[in-house]
Amino acid sequence: MEFHDRLLFEEKPNDLLTIGELLIDLISDEYDDTFMTDSYTKYPGGAPSNIAINARKLGIRTQMASCVGEDGFGDYLLARLREEGMSTGFIQRSEEPTSLVAVSRSRSTPVPIFYRGADCQLVFSPPLEGAVLNSKAIHFSCWPISRLPSRRVVERVIDAARASGVRIGFDPNYHPMIWQRGEDGVAYVKSILAKADFVKPSEDDAERLFGPDTPENQLTKFLNYGAKLVILTLGKDGALVSNGKETREFPTMATDVADTTGAGDAFWSGFYSAAIKGYPLEKALKLGFAVSAYKLRFAGAIVPLPKLEDIKSQFVL
Amino acid sequence: MEFHDRLLFEEKPNDLLTIGELLIDLISDEYDDTFMTDSYTKYPGGAPSNIAINARKLGIRTQMASCVGEDGFGDYLLARLREEGMSTGFIQRSEEPTSLVAVSRSRSTPVPIFYRGADCQLVFSPPLEGAVLNSKAIHFSCWPISRLPSRRVVERVIDAARASGVRIGFDPNYHPMIWQRGEDGVAYVKSILAKADFVKPSEDDAERLFGPDTPENQLTKFLNYGAKLVILTLGKDGALVSNGKETREFPTMATDVADTTGAGDAFWSGFYSAAIKGYPLEKALKLGFAVSAYKLRFAGAIVPLPKLEDIKSQFVL
Repeated sequence: MEFHDRLLFEEKPNDLLTIGELLIDLISDEYDDTFMTDSYTKYPGGAPSNIAINARKLGIRTQMASCVGEDGFGDYLLARLREEGMSTGFIQRSEEPTSLVAVSRSRSTPVPIFYRGADCQLVFSPPLEGAVLNSKAIHFSCWPISRLPSRRVVERVIDAARASGVRIGFDPNYHPMIWQRGEDGVAYVKSILAKADFVKPSEDDAERLFGPDTPENQLTKFLNYGAKLVILTLGKDGALVSNGKETREFPTMATDVADTTGAGDAFWSGFYSAAIKGYPLEKALKLGFAVSAYKLRFAGAIVPLPKLEDIKSQFVL
Repeated sequence: MEFHDRLLFEEKPNDLLTIGELLIDLISDEYDDTFMTDSYTKYPGGAPSNIAINARKLGIRTQMASCVGEDGFGDYLLARLREEGMSTGFIQRSEEPTSLVAVSRSRSTPVPIFYRGADCQLVFSPPLEGAVLNSKAIHFSCWPISRLPSRRVVERVIDAARASGVRIGFDPNYHPMIWQRGEDGVAYVKSILAKADFVKPSEDDAERLFGPDTPENQLTKFLNYGAKLVILTLGKDGALVSNGKETREFPTMATDVADTTGAGDAFWSGFYSAAIKGYPLEKALKLGFAVSAYKLRFAGAIVPLPKLEDIKSQFVL
């Protein structure tokens, strides 16, 4: 992948398929580091739905594959997807409860409580396989590979995607707290890097996978594991991106930061939308960072995004 | 057990040990049958802690054995037990998240969403065995027997209790929704009835275990399975109690009903307290129903109960 080239995608009826967790975020209303306060608000959560919803607003065709419980929270999440104009045809239902993450608003480092239920119960089915084969790109993070049986489903999805020219984006957001109990996920996550076209670690992800090091050295480690394009995000310091031949710096475009929730998902949405619309790699990355900067002005993970071209004009790209 | 006799308890350093779920009840703030509203309040939940806390207020010595997560909700539940003056020495911690039940306030029949985490991870340990042997009575419901591994722990607790003269109370509150997936719990629950001294089904519990029938016939079925004292509660119609030789009716003493949450737990607290304080069986049952009627005047499962003797005077028993 060259920075000045367009990324090539095979012609398919769908642009982007995201695969993984669709869940309830249960967030304390008050700041409270210790889960002692009693009022909570629920929000629809999960990066795959944020990315699919955002990218649809930006102007590409998106689908989402996930699994929710046969329960009220599952019904609620399906209703919210429909409200956003998303198809729910690839959302499976399970007897396990809809996955939920409880978070205390915190000024220090919040420690979420993870209730992994239906999200890991995704099964590989002919409709899911069809959705993969019919998409230009698929996206997943460490969530569905962190537990069985959904890990085996993602492995089959990766094989199907690679066999039929579907591009793969992987968010190596490894954290031991989401991983299967008693298992060390680091080696497994590293083994996935070579199978992806686009990998976007944060500095924290890199440190959890490889230990502390300079951003440049971390980039090299991802590349040595076979990652083709590594987008290492550095918070307010922007990002370093390497295709294995050259490394470019991307300063942050954020001027106004209301809430960092979903900033990474917004990047992915902008990047996929721009790449699939045919912008060259460097421009697609810039448009990803522009969408992220646009999202940062608003609170929440799902915000009223305009079309990609409007963001392109606003950010003079 | 004769209605006019005192129940005999062996002399032990603790009166009542309750075993089972200690969890978060997450309840919607608005009435909503479908989990579509977003505001929730968390409450400490689980019948074993309600019973142990209530009975302590009524004037007996109580302990509770349970398992919560090594997480913020677990810390919160321990803090609440301490605030109620309870020892937390038999509360184990697990890597699984603290169990949680989400409920939509409903004017029809609410369908809760059960997140069974740490509560089923109870292990049989020398301290737990010691707590059983040091108690006059133990109490559990279908929660800890509904899943593995805690079911095996309760089996060992029952064996230890029966071998050393510890009385056993069992709430056969069977519901398929809390049972291990793919397993029919009805036969298992029936197999526990003969091992208990006191069994308190509701009419709904009886119907789930034995199908629909008259209250008198349901009593007979519990007795035929070996239950020694069966307390069949009939809501506003009071209760029917049989010791296998005779059946007595107990009309409700409730006059003022603010909230039925925890009414059954309040009965158990009053019954155990009175029986252990030496009241004859019939009086102990009446005092149980009086405590339940007292609780019904207040909202919530944990209410400011006075000493048992004050309730005895108030209800002229």
